[in-house]
Amino acid sequence: MEINNKIIKLLDDLRERTPLVHQITNYVTVNDCANITLAIGGSPVMADDINEVLEMVSLSSSLVINIGTLNSRSVESMIKAGKRANELKIPVILDPVGAGATSYRTEVCKRIISEVRLAVIRGNLSEIKTIYGIDTITRGVDASESFDVSGDEFTKTKEMARKFAVKFVTVVAITGEVDIITDGKILYTTSNGHKMMSRVTGTGCMCTAVIGCYLGAGENNLIAALAGVVSMGIAGETAYERLDKKIEGSGTFRMKMIDVMYNLCEVEINKRSKINEE
Amino acid sequence: MEINNKIIKLLDDLRERTPLVHQITNYVTVNDCANITLAIGGSPVMADDINEVLEMVSLSSSLVINIGTLNSRSVESMIKAGKRANELKIPVILDPVGAGATSYRTEVCKRIISEVRLAVIRGNLSEIKTIYGIDTITRGVDASESFDVSGDEFTKTKEMARKFAVKFVTVVAITGEVDIITDGKILYTTSNGHKMMSRVTGTGCMCTAVIGCYLGAGENNLIAALAGVVSMGIAGETAYERLDKKIEGSGTFRMKMIDVMYNLCEVEINKRSKINEE
Amino acid sequence: MEINNKIIKLLDDLRERTPLVHQITNYVTVNDCANITLAIGGSPVMADDINEVLEMVSLSSSLVINIGTLNSRSVESMIKAGKRANELKIPVILDPVGAGATSYRTEVCKRIISEVRLAVIRGNLSEIKTIYGIDTITRGVDASESFDVSGDEFTKTKEMARKFAVKFVTVVAITGEVDIITDGKILYTTSNGHKMMSRVTGTGCMCTAVIGCYLGAGENNLIAALAGVVSMGIAGETAYERLDKKIEGSGTFRMKMIDVMYNLCEVEINKRSKINEE
Repeated sequence: MEINNKIIKLLDDLRERTPLVHQITNYVTVNDCANITLAIGGSPVMADDINEVLEMVSLSSSLVINIGTLNSRSVESMIKAGKRANELKIPVILDPVGAGATSYRTEVCKRIISEVRLAVIRGNLSEIKTIYGIDTITRGVDASESFDVSGDEFTKTKEMARKFAVKFVTVVAITGEVDIITDGKILYTTSNGHKMMSRVTGTGCMCTAVIGCYLGAGENNLIAALAGVVSMGIAGETAYERLDKKIEGSGTFRMKMIDVMYNLCEVEINKRSKINEE
Repeated sequence: MEINNKIIKLLDDLRERTPLVHQITNYVTVNDCANITLAIGGSPVMADDINEVLEMVSLSSSLVINIGTLNSRSVESMIKAGKRANELKIPVILDPVGAGATSYRTEVCKRIISEVRLAVIRGNLSEIKTIYGIDTITRGVDASESFDVSGDEFTKTKEMARKFAVKFVTVVAITGEVDIITDGKILYTTSNGHKMMSRVTGTGCMCTAVIGCYLGAGENNLIAALAGVVSMGIAGETAYERLDKKIEGSGTFRMKMIDVMYNLCEVEINKRSKINEE
Repeated sequence: MEINNKIIKLLDDLRERTPLVHQITNYVTVNDCANITLAIGGSPVMADDINEVLEMVSLSSSLVINIGTLNSRSVESMIKAGKRANELKIPVILDPVGAGATSYRTEVCKRIISEVRLAVIRGNLSEIKTIYGIDTITRGVDASESFDVSGDEFTKTKEMARKFAVKFVTVVAITGEVDIITDGKILYTTSNGHKMMSRVTGTGCMCTAVIGCYLGAGENNLIAALAGVVSMGIAGETAYERLDKKIEGSGTFRMKMIDVMYNLCEVEINKRSKINEE
């Protein structure tokens, strides 16, 4: 399948180039983000101080902004680093964790989007709806509106995703039971992954970090976003299959996801990827 | 056993309600706290910025305050969120990590206790003694005076626990080789767990997070505290039994504790819980 | 072998004394640093607030300063704690994470070195070269110039290490494929470890934490640095051997390193250590 070949090529490039991925992120899942970055073949650097983010981002192949535990100090660093990345044509991805849960998060997201040109935004449905300006309910940072993957609602969601991408001139990746990835023109839906991923903190953040790695390895933001979502989904579903359900749970599952990402290869991608193009 | 049934009922409610548990905590064990919250069936949100804690706590079913890596910024957020939780009748639990090790920690604990009405305080013996005003030695944040579980000393400790609960109008859970949980009237002692838990950072913090989940699922603070302590103890002792002692150590042990919490069920609680009521 | 006996003796002392190791470190790998400290037998305390570092370091057997995610607030705490440690003759180890990647990191390292007397500095080759004043390239915080372990280049590197130790009146540990540990007079090279360690975040930080534990257990800074490097190397190579390479990767590898450290013993050290004295 042609699209798989593009993902596989990008993964090969990633592993050859080991892009430095600068991540200004939260202190809850930062270790997992660093380890998943290393697992797939990138090189993470987590610097957030205003005194050094300009230099650090200049060395980097991509920039990940994640507002999971935002504060006034880190927000300034995010904006400053994002603007410099734009000047240097370094792609930037935003993870709007919990947008809608508090007005502070929503406002910070809007500010970042207005001041920084984003290659990709990855979030769950309620976060993306909030940013788009649709009334929705974000419950904390993990829970999310679920997709109704059949019928009208799903069609509307895809339409919203396209409009979102056009409005903000970016690629948007909405992840959930089914994922939607679009640049406003081409739209992919993917259905890898497993629902147990929602029982481990940071699977969304890790997905964003993995997209950040792919962004640092190539030129095509849409394929990078798709590759990240599919890679993370394969990691989740494969890890789930390898669990001894009688005694293993979310602790082992988390570790095995990182193992699968470490061993991700052409064979697995061809065997498992479930991608539809519309 | 009647008390087991209460715990089992609360666990069922927890899993049905998936309470949002707002945690203002430390950056050392925050990931473990989020993952143990998800493992038992809660939904964690770790927001600590003064600009959003009021809104975040308002969405939540309970609030966990953990001073493990306190600083002047986070302390203000703790107090502010705690007061709002009180207004909204959302239960608050305090983990006074390292109280007594430095005067700053002791003073912050006293300030929180004086300004926020606490549903539960969970700490080790030296932390609780410090707050109560008894001269003791807190060595860092992990080590603690051990219990002398026989004879006069233990009787005195239980008496102190009752007085502590009455003085501060709260439930107190003192965890160690034997655990004491009391609201000043009813007092439970429990002896689940394994001493290897002290070789993994954050088992105390995780216990507090689990109590936070139970607090968010029901109305009875004493049973919530007991359920949390027993659940964490069962996780520890079961994980220990499942270790291949020749080659596995504290790394695998930590992961297996989360696995056990994920799979915790009626059968395990009935089989393992060791609770005495006095 | 005499040197192994010194390491084994120090490990025994460590486990008997369970030194309290105060660590002012980064939020990426802090949990791993705490867990590796507990695994080898130390007691970690991660306090960084200016209001309490003086008291906390006074209770401690050693102080670890790690600039992985430095900021203006934590830098002041590092300096203040370091000076107090000096007054109290508590050994201090510096991990100059990413020195050279940004000028802020380089300057902070220089400031710490000028204001605090260091027992040990542990870094990779580019970090150490940067501090010494040799032009080099530090790419992020993980990557490092690799050693050319044969011929002239290696001889020059060892010479630089000796001069570094003399210039800064400290023990220096340069870790990489081959490690160099010297106080300026005696120089050890060691070659334990496995290259997969670079695919897990924080193996350098953990090595520094382990040296911190050994520093808190004895009087000989050179042997403490050597013991820490060799212990971490043994953890890495043993964990690698125990991997099921078909399905396990960096997630399992990380956990197994902590397991090996937990079970580290005389037999393993005698069987595995690869130390040369020059």
